[in-house]
Amino acid sequence: MGRVKLHTRKTNTMLHNVLINGEWRASSGTATFNAVNPATCEPIDGDYPVSPWEEVEQAIEASAAASREMRGWPGERFAAFLEKFADRIEARADELVALANQETALPVSPRLKDGELPRTTDQLRQAASAAREGSWATPTIDTKANIRSMHGPIGPVAVFGPNNFPFAFNSVAGGDFAAAVAAGNPVIAKGHSSHPGTTRLLTEEAFAAAQATSMPTGFVQLIYRTSHDDGCKFVGHADVGAIGYTGSRSAGLRLKEAADRSGNPIYLELSSINPVFILPGALTERSDEIAGDFSGSCLMGTGQFCTNPGMVVLIAGEKTDSFVTAVAEKFSAAPVGTFLSEAVQKGFLSGVSALKDAGAELIVGGEAGGGSGFCCQNTLLKVDGTKFLENPEALQAEAFGNGSLFVIAADAAQAEQIAESLEGNLTGCIYSATDGSDDSVYDQIAPALRTKVGRLLDDKMPTGVAVSSAMNHGGPFPATGHPVFTAVGMPQSIYRYSMLQSYDAIRCHRLPASLRDEAPNETCWRYVDGNWRQGSL
Amino acid sequence: MGRVKLHTRKTNTMLHNVLINGEWRASSGTATFNAVNPATCEPIDGDYPVSPWEEVEQAIEASAAASREMRGWPGERFAAFLEKFADRIEARADELVALANQETALPVSPRLKDGELPRTTDQLRQAASAAREGSWATPTIDTKANIRSMHGPIGPVAVFGPNNFPFAFNSVAGGDFAAAVAAGNPVIAKGHSSHPGTTRLLTEEAFAAAQATSMPTGFVQLIYRTSHDDGCKFVGHADVGAIGYTGSRSAGLRLKEAADRSGNPIYLELSSINPVFILPGALTERSDEIAGDFSGSCLMGTGQFCTNPGMVVLIAGEKTDSFVTAVAEKFSAAPVGTFLSEAVQKGFLSGVSALKDAGAELIVGGEAGGGSGFCCQNTLLKVDGTKFLENPEALQAEAFGNGSLFVIAADAAQAEQIAESLEGNLTGCIYSATDGSDDSVYDQIAPALRTKVGRLLDDKMPTGVAVSSAMNHGGPFPATGHPVFTAVGMPQSIYRYSMLQSYDAIRCHRLPASLRDEAPNETCWRYVDGNWRQGSL
Repeated sequence: MGRVKLHTRKTNTMLHNVLINGEWRASSGTATFNAVNPATCEPIDGDYPVSPWEEVEQAIEASAAASREMRGWPGERFAAFLEKFADRIEARADELVALANQETALPVSPRLKDGELPRTTDQLRQAASAAREGSWATPTIDTKANIRSMHGPIGPVAVFGPNNFPFAFNSVAGGDFAAAVAAGNPVIAKGHSSHPGTTRLLTEEAFAAAQATSMPTGFVQLIYRTSHDDGCKFVGHADVGAIGYTGSRSAGLRLKEAADRSGNPIYLELSSINPVFILPGALTERSDEIAGDFSGSCLMGTGQFCTNPGMVVLIAGEKTDSFVTAVAEKFSAAPVGTFLSEAVQKGFLSGVSALKDAGAELIVGGEAGGGSGFCCQNTLLKVDGTKFLENPEALQAEAFGNGSLFVIAADAAQAEQIAESLEGNLTGCIYSATDGSDDSVYDQIAPALRTKVGRLLDDKMPTGVAVSSAMNHGGPFPATGHPVFTAVGMPQSIYRYSMLQSYDAIRCHRLPASLRDEAPNETCWRYVDGNWRQGSL
Repeated sequence: MGRVKLHTRKTNTMLHNVLINGEWRASSGTATFNAVNPATCEPIDGDYPVSPWEEVEQAIEASAAASREMRGWPGERFAAFLEKFADRIEARADELVALANQETALPVSPRLKDGELPRTTDQLRQAASAAREGSWATPTIDTKANIRSMHGPIGPVAVFGPNNFPFAFNSVAGGDFAAAVAAGNPVIAKGHSSHPGTTRLLTEEAFAAAQATSMPTGFVQLIYRTSHDDGCKFVGHADVGAIGYTGSRSAGLRLKEAADRSGNPIYLELSSINPVFILPGALTERSDEIAGDFSGSCLMGTGQFCTNPGMVVLIAGEKTDSFVTAVAEKFSAAPVGTFLSEAVQKGFLSGVSALKDAGAELIVGGEAGGGSGFCCQNTLLKVDGTKFLENPEALQAEAFGNGSLFVIAADAAQAEQIAESLEGNLTGCIYSATDGSDDSVYDQIAPALRTKVGRLLDDKMPTGVAVSSAMNHGGPFPATGHPVFTAVGMPQSIYRYSMLQSYDAIRCHRLPASLRDEAPNETCWRYVDGNWRQGSL
């Protein structure tokens, strides 16, 4: 997202530096871009470079050198960095929040200041704890065979951050970054073009923290942008260990193809419409409450969440009609938020238009405007289940923003068919009556929905992704690139940036600390001869 | 491997049936092939069909139906099947061993009867235990957030077995099959063309066990062969959950590309040369012993192991010269084994020829013959480290069979460079002196080698893959397709055929048994609020 017009460098505008191999240096490229304030549609002062291939290569080389230098380092080293970085982010919170607000139009409070920034530092500190303790690596010991294994670092990690979380998913401070570092890897951050300034400030703090904790010069690096072709060369480079990408499906699939060809693991978080099934008994019981929950979830943050409920499946009937009407009223009455960028506005309008072309009918909204800056009216569409099943692919395409499609199934059997026709999604919700009257329908739909989503919810909207050990912010393709992994949650999200390493008959003193007979610390969990335990053997 | 000449069906030869949707039926295809006894080079009676696309599609459809039917089934159901199957294999052991010997020329005893068959039934029983107990799924409970997660089945699994383990890696009985079933999935087995009869007998027993334990008709299915294009369509099909493939790199990469395009997880085990570094002090200390270990490991099973030591790195010197001479004598004196097929013979000869073209010098062997049936002389080549580093790609290409390449490094620094230049491998070994005199060289080489291999060994040859919880039969690309997973070892190998499933605020009675407050059984390990524990909450 966040495509901005490239222009040739103007001599009177400040051009920001990239961070390569421990040095803030002028980019050798000539193309530049700038951020735009989405609330005013005005450019923000300061230009950012598009890095040419040679610069990407320099970053990869420095990252590979850092990776070699850090081989065998204890988790404590990475924990120290992560904690120092979290402290520094907090010390610069006001400036970070102000710039992020200017670049994204996300509200200062509670969103940026009280929500996302504390979440970000909390993630970094959770990652630090995980790195220090070492349980995440699942140290495994087979004493009889004298074979031991654990997860180790994978090498240079390239992180491509999304537009919608300038802190918590930022390529240089978010969940992917924290996980990659906790596993012991250097990171090359590819900033998102819609908030380059926020990324720059975060990188300044990451770099300062790296210096304060004596990390190698190539440990944290930043480039703002590359051409699409160079992006593909980047993720397919033999010296890149793994890639984390959160963003649009089309760009993500191009990168996936390039990474797959080289055998580089790539962890993608792409589109998701997060279907919500609302069963008849639930509507009889608490229609108003659900309408409120849904409207809040769908319009929060102008609908720009990966887990935004973009599709609601209802079963035809009077209660459903009233529910649709109630939601439509709420959507019309609710204030219209500002999008993250012009690209989001364009994408939303073309998504809505594609749904209409595929047979969906507009209930409310659908036009640009209604608020300040880049924005569109709060939008609802509907389609009946039969029509949906005639063209399920087009009718489940994502329109990223403050809108949703209501699918009205003829009956429970058709609702089940709709669940079976879904692509992979991050989440799926089912609202059912508390008195058990929906239970048979639930039992019909849930098993199908379960196989299509990473996280299944009862009576709860999908927005709100707790940083929990049991979270799965993941799901089957095309929601993500691999259904075994989660992008959120410690320690599980760390595995992505690791490789499994077995030690067969390795002499004791050469083993990593976590695999020796003596425990590395008091709390580290190890899987010894088929049982989990703490402490020394 | 194992390419056999296609021919049109002869009416006077028995044509074997495929197993589709619970029925042994005549294939609708017209092309057929037959097995060849590699020890006599004579065809074995009985023809096998090449399945046309429509047949593959029928199998996928039946498998998807089975997958739907088994949703929510407890691990006990799969455990019962796996144990019944293991019992039935043992009851038919003599017939299985005799036919496998005829089709592969692998010795009846100890290899097939006393080694591979018991290993196979042991794997099936370990998978059964894992499925019954449920720890493999890592049930995770966050009581505060009321979010719970575990791994669940991924859907129809396609297993492509290799030529070199007719039982233990067989598509219908080996490690991939056991893991896929333990995770709760149906399997479509694609038999290897070099031992179709063994696969047929195993499938008969799998099917009988499935019937005895009331599994769905599409739970286990068998096709013997497809065209390459249909193989790609198969692994890329939207209804296939995941794929396990063990075999040649070229065929594997074609399948990977097709699966990647559809976002289907594919777990590959491809080529590996399993480098062995032998340090000077170790040679001073025990040169004869190591020469014996190496020759045994390299010639065992005619070198047809995924973990065969196909490359040895030595540091130039007198001791190294004597070692090379001693191994060459052993290779010349050792009996020449029979290859699994004509294709292996051809592949080995062309591999040796490619190494020579790239600058390697033949020490002994290198020609076809020397034993009975399809075979080549035990073969050693050598090249100096400088030449190796000029063309590392060509000089680390696999020649699958009874041969190895000695790389003579000028010094420790060059040996380290050689380690850095390696592709991903399953294993890497270092032999060092027991008195510590090699330790500084070890410390130079091991960190580099560690990042290139799934399993690192001290003073031990790589052949012999224990079914251990700490085993990693995996490694970085191109040894496998993903460095996080292992193909051998319970319970770790099961994850591959799963997806992570999170349950957010799901009402208690709807949770899978492993995620309820009450423990599913006394021994299941669950990760509760950051700690591993057994028993109820």
